Amino acid sequence: MAGNTFGKLFTLTTFGESHGEAIGGIIDGCPAGIEIDLDLVYRDMERRKPGQSKIVTQRKEPDSVNFFSGIFEGKTTGTPIGFNIVNTNQKSHDYSHIKDTYRPSHADYTYDQKYGVRDYRGGGRSSARETASRVAAGAIAKQFLKDIKINAFVDSVGEIHMTTPYQELDFDKIESNIVRCPDEAFAEKMIDKIKEIRKAGDTIGGTVMCVIQNVPVGLGEPVFDKLHAELGKAMLSINAVKGFEYGSGFHGASMLGSEHNDLFNADGSTKTNLSGGIQGGISNGMDIYFRVAFKPVATIMQNQPTIDKEGNATEMQGKGRHDPCVVPRAVPIVEAMAALVLADYMLLNKGSKI
Amino acid sequence: MAGNTFGKLFTLTTFGESHGEAIGGIIDGCPAGIEIDLDLVYRDMERRKPGQSKIVTQRKEPDSVNFFSGIFEGKTTGTPIGFNIVNTNQKSHDYSHIKDTYRPSHADYTYDQKYGVRDYRGGGRSSARETASRVAAGAIAKQFLKDIKINAFVDSVGEIHMTTPYQELDFDKIESNIVRCPDEAFAEKMIDKIKEIRKAGDTIGGTVMCVIQNVPVGLGEPVFDKLHAELGKAMLSINAVKGFEYGSGFHGASMLGSEHNDLFNADGSTKTNLSGGIQGGISNGMDIYFRVAFKPVATIMQNQPTIDKEGNATEMQGKGRHDPCVVPRAVPIVEAMAALVLADYMLLNKGSKI
Amino acid sequence: MAGNTFGKLFTLTTFGESHGEAIGGIIDGCPAGIEIDLDLVYRDMERRKPGQSKIVTQRKEPDSVNFFSGIFEGKTTGTPIGFNIVNTNQKSHDYSHIKDTYRPSHADYTYDQKYGVRDYRGGGRSSARETASRVAAGAIAKQFLKDIKINAFVDSVGEIHMTTPYQELDFDKIESNIVRCPDEAFAEKMIDKIKEIRKAGDTIGGTVMCVIQNVPVGLGEPVFDKLHAELGKAMLSINAVKGFEYGSGFHGASMLGSEHNDLFNADGSTKTNLSGGIQGGISNGMDIYFRVAFKPVATIMQNQPTIDKEGNATEMQGKGRHDPCVVPRAVPIVEAMAALVLADYMLLNKGSKI
Amino acid sequence: MAGNTFGKLFTLTTFGESHGEAIGGIIDGCPAGIEIDLDLVYRDMERRKPGQSKIVTQRKEPDSVNFFSGIFEGKTTGTPIGFNIVNTNQKSHDYSHIKDTYRPSHADYTYDQKYGVRDYRGGGRSSARETASRVAAGAIAKQFLKDIKINAFVDSVGEIHMTTPYQELDFDKIESNIVRCPDEAFAEKMIDKIKEIRKAGDTIGGTVMCVIQNVPVGLGEPVFDKLHAELGKAMLSINAVKGFEYGSGFHGASMLGSEHNDLFNADGSTKTNLSGGIQGGISNGMDIYFRVAFKPVATIMQNQPTIDKEGNATEMQGKGRHDPCVVPRAVPIVEAMAALVLADYMLLNKGSKI
Repeated sequence: MAGNTFGKLFTLTTFGESHGEAIGGIIDGCPAGIEIDLDLVYRDMERRKPGQSKIVTQRKEPDSVNFFSGIFEGKTTGTPIGFNIVNTNQKSHDYSHIKDTYRPSHADYTYDQKYGVRDYRGGGRSSARETASRVAAGAIAKQFLKDIKINAFVDSVGEIHMTTPYQELDFDKIESNIVRCPDEAFAEKMIDKIKEIRKAGDTIGGTVMCVIQNVPVGLGEPVFDKLHAELGKAMLSINAVKGFEYGSGFHGASMLGSEHNDLFNADGSTKTNLSGGIQGGISNGMDIYFRVAFKPVATIMQNQPTIDKEGNATEMQGKGRHDPCVVPRAVPIVEAMAALVLADYMLLNKGSKI
Repeated sequence: MAGNTFGKLFTLTTFGESHGEAIGGIIDGCPAGIEIDLDLVYRDMERRKPGQSKIVTQRKEPDSVNFFSGIFEGKTTGTPIGFNIVNTNQKSHDYSHIKDTYRPSHADYTYDQKYGVRDYRGGGRSSARETASRVAAGAIAKQFLKDIKINAFVDSVGEIHMTTPYQELDFDKIESNIVRCPDEAFAEKMIDKIKEIRKAGDTIGGTVMCVIQNVPVGLGEPVFDKLHAELGKAMLSINAVKGFEYGSGFHGASMLGSEHNDLFNADGSTKTNLSGGIQGGISNGMDIYFRVAFKPVATIMQNQPTIDKEGNATEMQGKGRHDPCVVPRAVPIVEAMAALVLADYMLLNKGSKI
Repeated sequence: MAGNTFGKLFTLTTFGESHGEAIGGIIDGCPAGIEIDLDLVYRDMERRKPGQSKIVTQRKEPDSVNFFSGIFEGKTTGTPIGFNIVNTNQKSHDYSHIKDTYRPSHADYTYDQKYGVRDYRGGGRSSARETASRVAAGAIAKQFLKDIKINAFVDSVGEIHMTTPYQELDFDKIESNIVRCPDEAFAEKMIDKIKEIRKAGDTIGGTVMCVIQNVPVGLGEPVFDKLHAELGKAMLSINAVKGFEYGSGFHGASMLGSEHNDLFNADGSTKTNLSGGIQGGISNGMDIYFRVAFKPVATIMQNQPTIDKEGNATEMQGKGRHDPCVVPRAVPIVEAMAALVLADYMLLNKGSKI
Repeated sequence: MAGNTFGKLFTLTTFGESHGEAIGGIIDGCPAGIEIDLDLVYRDMERRKPGQSKIVTQRKEPDSVNFFSGIFEGKTTGTPIGFNIVNTNQKSHDYSHIKDTYRPSHADYTYDQKYGVRDYRGGGRSSARETASRVAAGAIAKQFLKDIKINAFVDSVGEIHMTTPYQELDFDKIESNIVRCPDEAFAEKMIDKIKEIRKAGDTIGGTVMCVIQNVPVGLGEPVFDKLHAELGKAMLSINAVKGFEYGSGFHGASMLGSEHNDLFNADGSTKTNLSGGIQGGISNGMDIYFRVAFKPVATIMQNQPTIDKEGNATEMQGKGRHDPCVVPRAVPIVEAMAALVLADYMLLNKGSKI
């Protein structure tokens, strides 16, 4: 109920600042008897990890996850799964330059105003480092979901928009390139763009698309906890996200009803899927797909005028190792949050009928 | 916790099907001592009401709200505020044509699959009639919020996009025309478009923009319950919504960090506001603004092929009184949900510091 | 989440002051497809109703329940069940004598201090009239629970303690007498005692015992939401309750382990049941039984010294129509709250295993 | 919302099995700016620790708490406080004798039935080892509560009931003896009793009383989340608890209204306090006091007949190091749970008035 718990029945509660002792979390409500392959956790951690390629931050953090409970002899026990990820990197930097200075478009100012005190080192709680816990938990949720397949990928970087419909993509190619765009021609352009932006000491935004397949009919809890509403909240809770759309999305707002309606096949599936796999807030068995907009990273390698705690004008120097574009590393985070939502709604749906 | 409750401390729980006895709700957690002007409730109900103009559905529903509790001698008492709105219209129609037939892009199919039984009359629980309870509750929340001003308006209808920046708009003009667009030149075009679409027996989508002013710094509960994440969920829970973006939104995803960062003034306000009034999930005191995409209404006045419960092919006839475009009536609903989120986060924020 | 919602998945939210327009509630999360017999609701309402016998308050309140939604063609639809009970009696009394005066051991003072404003008429929200909504909802929950049988009965009135073990009682006799004690010899003594106390213008406390049979193994959500912990909270939330014990209860605290352990039969049942049907917070399939202590009603027909809002000494006159002993009417309330807990935990348990 | 989170705003989520890698938890919602003295945490951990005296289990567990986040430069930051306690003892025992055997009046059988799989080593999740996390979190909550003083102590062991009214006790003497009874004459008798019981290879129950002083008026969230209802749930969630009563408790059920009513002083305080500091579910500023009944520990040093997983008769041998009486070590656990409830209700109360 406090803001660091996500979900109702399959819940994740996280803790941790970027430069404290450790980050981590507790998964509660995961059903018993699920076989857990820890390699699948590590694989997703690798996909989120800093330093994994030339187009992401060059910080080195091993990000190994320690599981403390809830898994016994290779299976979940139905009890909470506690874990942490030690911050090995936390003493190597000097943060005096941001201690009393508010970085533009960061959360320094708002945390200070809200809480009156903050761990200023590396962004503290507002750092995207926190999403490592989400990825670890999402990897457990994916194993509960089993046949439900969640594939996220980079859809655009800056003005470069992949135009290939998702149905024509080979999701196995997502990991074949460092920007995680399954269309290799677009991937190349995106990578070049990010390199160019990095060289200029700037950053750039992008979008991630996510497709969820093999979803059972019936997930969603109207009228407030519609499936897409919770997916939207999940995505908007990720650092740097500015927008969410599913199915026809914003484009659908300019369409006619006669164009937009998805006509039925005899088996209840639909001929088109502008609905995005959800009708009335409940999954209809078609693919769920949505897009997530990420703003450019606020930390740029350029000097910017700003203020300190007392409101005095000062200058923020661009330094450190930061991502020029967040979307390649955001892909597993989007998948993780989608997995957490789906896992929760699978459990919530169990009470719908007697 | 079940899906019909919204909020954590300032909560709204709703009930009701479009053609049952009544719809209504319970507001719980509203602080004591707030003076309630019922005329402000009635005014918002009028703005959402069917039959209010030529470009909305011509159904007649008085939608008067009966308050049962929680308000005593003109003030809230801190106890739950129960209310209902009687469905006066519920026996006047014949619903046999939709009893066993699934309307395309409606929730008939998914409700039936999820619950195994459904009140098929007029959409039942999945009808947008349910939003009347939200508007009633939102009107109470607005009175708690007092100086926080929430103004929503129509931003686009189909391809007609108002291009005027919101800072140049006069919000007092929102109610001066029936489409609720404060730029009268655009309003006229939108109205013409909707009339044209209605004549064709079709429907059209649109977008609603919402601006929230005088928000105190500090609202938002990271890391999952960020203020914009809850606003997004609130909007996505409204019928027909396909997308949500705040601040720079999807456009921000194609920008550079050097363009996107909001530089500070000495008082902590920012020179630009691409952040949309929220940084790190916490309000920073600048205007909060966001856009909501509504798909075209699924009920069109044209015959459509569809299936019945047994999967047999059949035809859905276009009849009844329905909105050709949902956005004019969606304006007070967007405001209501924004008010409910803000009210909740005002209370949640009280525990941030000692 | 605010204080007027009970349960997590099968939830009841209530509203209403004793002398407002109406009281009522919303049941959310009740599974779809349950056949509802409204006569069973009315029967439980009759058991709680004022004026039902000579040993309860002589106020006349018909307490008929209006259901607004969620039940269609005799079955639940999985959508929220809204209902109210109109306060027909609300204008017949003069409450000026308690408007500014705090009744001893009532909630007048604490409500005033907490909320700063209160509906003083007849106790307002703190009146036990609110429990009528619980009984209505509990009667729905019982129909969901079906084979799980919940029987509450009066166990003691003042010093008169029924000593018959519950296994020897015929629960069909609970309704055979006006005090609702299934042992008729004790019932007679209790009725005489209450009549004597009433004549003296005084009130007396008592205890209610509740036995739940045919409970499936596995209900309970450790470590905090143990089944008995939630039953305890449910009972302690009823007006005038001062204590709760289950199984061996307070007596168990003076026993030895060698006496207290319940040894197993081959089928997993136990030879004794000092555990009260719950081990480690999870039902074990044996009968669940617990006892609830009710203090004497605070409103007595005697004058008492007290204070007014300004702290001035004044006198509270004993008048009105009140219960001399609350336990006969508390029996259906205890059952209702037990039913709500069980219904909730039935749904929560669905996610325990895959 | 899953069962391992306690509280609404000031929340504790715990994880861990007795013989897994570690136990621990996350405190979320603790306000920012509270100075934390870790010695106060360690002091409470010492009070709960095994091996602390001759009348408790002789297991050696250092129980040092590692804090990972949420405390910075000696103050809380308003972000989650993650911590763990490593299980140093976990490999030293052989648990093959309980792997497939159900210990009488333990949770082995119910966990197996509910989850289908369980960590059988030392009770796993159902072990009282889990309460160490509660004590750590309670020690943080106490520092937030500051002037609210919570003192628990042993009230009875078996048939030995301390008869001294709590008002005559010197709470500073609670820690002066190993049974934690502030009346030394009774303490001595209790200690002798426990030694005698231990020698017999048996165990014995007891009760803990708790007194909370300096509570502000207004804590409690009627009608379901009354302050005493949540205190009751908190206590009933502790291992081995069978009953809870506050104020006059079960004894109050045999009293007359004319005896039981607490008459007011001019300042709103009351001359007597049979209400136990709570009226209508809301604190009235008087001392809150309650009693908690603990059954005898189920693990006895005697052989007992029982069954295995297949329902075959077998014998459970009495061995290992276990508490002959749980109440001396339960004292800090009762205090911790009381502190968690109070902290939560302090935050919940902030929204009562505008």
